[in-house]
This record gives sequence, structure tokens and C-alpha cells, in this order.
Amino acid sequence: MIEAGNVRQGLPSEPLAGEVTDILASKRTVRIERIASTGQATPEGEWYDQDHDEWVLVVAGAARLRIEGEAADRDLAEGDWVLLPAHCRHRVTWIRAEPPTIWLAVHF
Amino acid sequence: MIEAGNVRQGLPSEPLAGEVTDILASKRTVRIERIASTGQATPEGEWYDQDHDEWVLVVAGAARLRIEGEAADRDLAEGDWVLLPAHCRHRVTWIRAEPPTIWLAVHF
Repeated sequence: MIEAGNVRQGLPSEPLAGEVTDILASKRTVRIERIASTGQATPEGEWYDQDHDEWVLVVAGAARLRIEGEAADRDLAEGDWVLLPAHCRHRVTWIRAEPPTIWLAVHF
Repeated sequence: MIEAGNVRQGLPSEPLAGEVTDILASKRTVRIERIASTGQATPEGEWYDQDHDEWVLVVAGAARLRIEGEAADRDLAEGDWVLLPAHCRHRVTWIRAEPPTIWLAVHF
């Protein structure tokens, strides 16, 4: 049985309280996720600080990403990717809600 | 220095003799690649047979994938992904050449 799907299908049809995360593949130290966001920025003053590397891709939509120590937000559009090393503190300052912004995240 | 890019940019502008592979991230047992193909199917009678899992996503374009033991090719369009377990023999029977088909491949 081969697992397969489409990252653009099965999205929330309206703004939701939270992001919707689907695990597309997971094995040993690697996890591939599709994240559908309907506007959830990181709460003010909070940062993501992870003990593993994360590679993120904007499949559809748009977002702004702040990386600690950088002078300004990074504008991310469709196709943009960023490699976030472990303990690179970052936050999503804005995200397009409608239609949902779709991220692909590879945690490794 | 944060590594970043766009999977839809920097593509070959014309059909090339071979695929163009860019390594976007690589660490320990994980490698993330962007592959731009201008029509390269797997040669007749050949199969990919890898000793690791591979997760592939069609970022743009279209392709047909044959998995050994399946009765027919799988049609892959934009957004489609497939998880190919280690030693799942497969071949690309057709791929859209113009504009180039863009794959994302996570080897892990």
C-alpha cells in the first residue's frame, strides 16, 4: 500500500480556531507535515525554539516570518523556502487567511 | 546565515540533456532536493530501486509514475505527493517538459 495524496486538497473551507496539521510521512527522526493555516500568527512575544532543524516551504498563500536577530520580517510567497536550524528562534508575524496558507514542513 | 530560496525560480529555460538537481538541505540521513525536469522519463526497462525512503511532491508540472506491481501508471499533477518506501521499484514513464516539471524530493 503506497501512501499518496495532494497537498492542495482537503483544506479547511473557513477560518478555524487553529492550524490544521496533517502528517504526510514520519519515520525515525524525520517528519513531513502539511500545515493549513487560516491566519494564525505566533502570539505576540512568543517564539518557536526547536531542538531540531526544520525546512519549511510555502506551497500556497503568503506569510511573514521574523527570525530573531534580523532587522525585519521576511516576506514569504508561494514557492519560498527557509531552512531553520535548531534553536533558530522564529515567529510568524502574519499569515494570509483566505484562502488558507499551505505550508510544507520537514522536521529532521 | 539562514539558507532560503524559491523552488519555482532558477529553472532551466529550455529542454536540457538531463534533469537539474539542487540540494536545498542536507544533514545526517536526510536530503531535500529540488529537481527540475525538462522531459526526462526513466529509460525503458530501468527502475529506481533505492535503499532509503523517498517522499516526492510535484510542485509544478505533471508526470506519470509506474510502481512495480501496479496495473497502471499513476497520473501526478501539481500538489500530488507519493511516499516511496525503500526498495519500492518505480519509474517515471512520462514527464511534462515545457515548462519544466518541478519535483521536491525528500530522501530519508
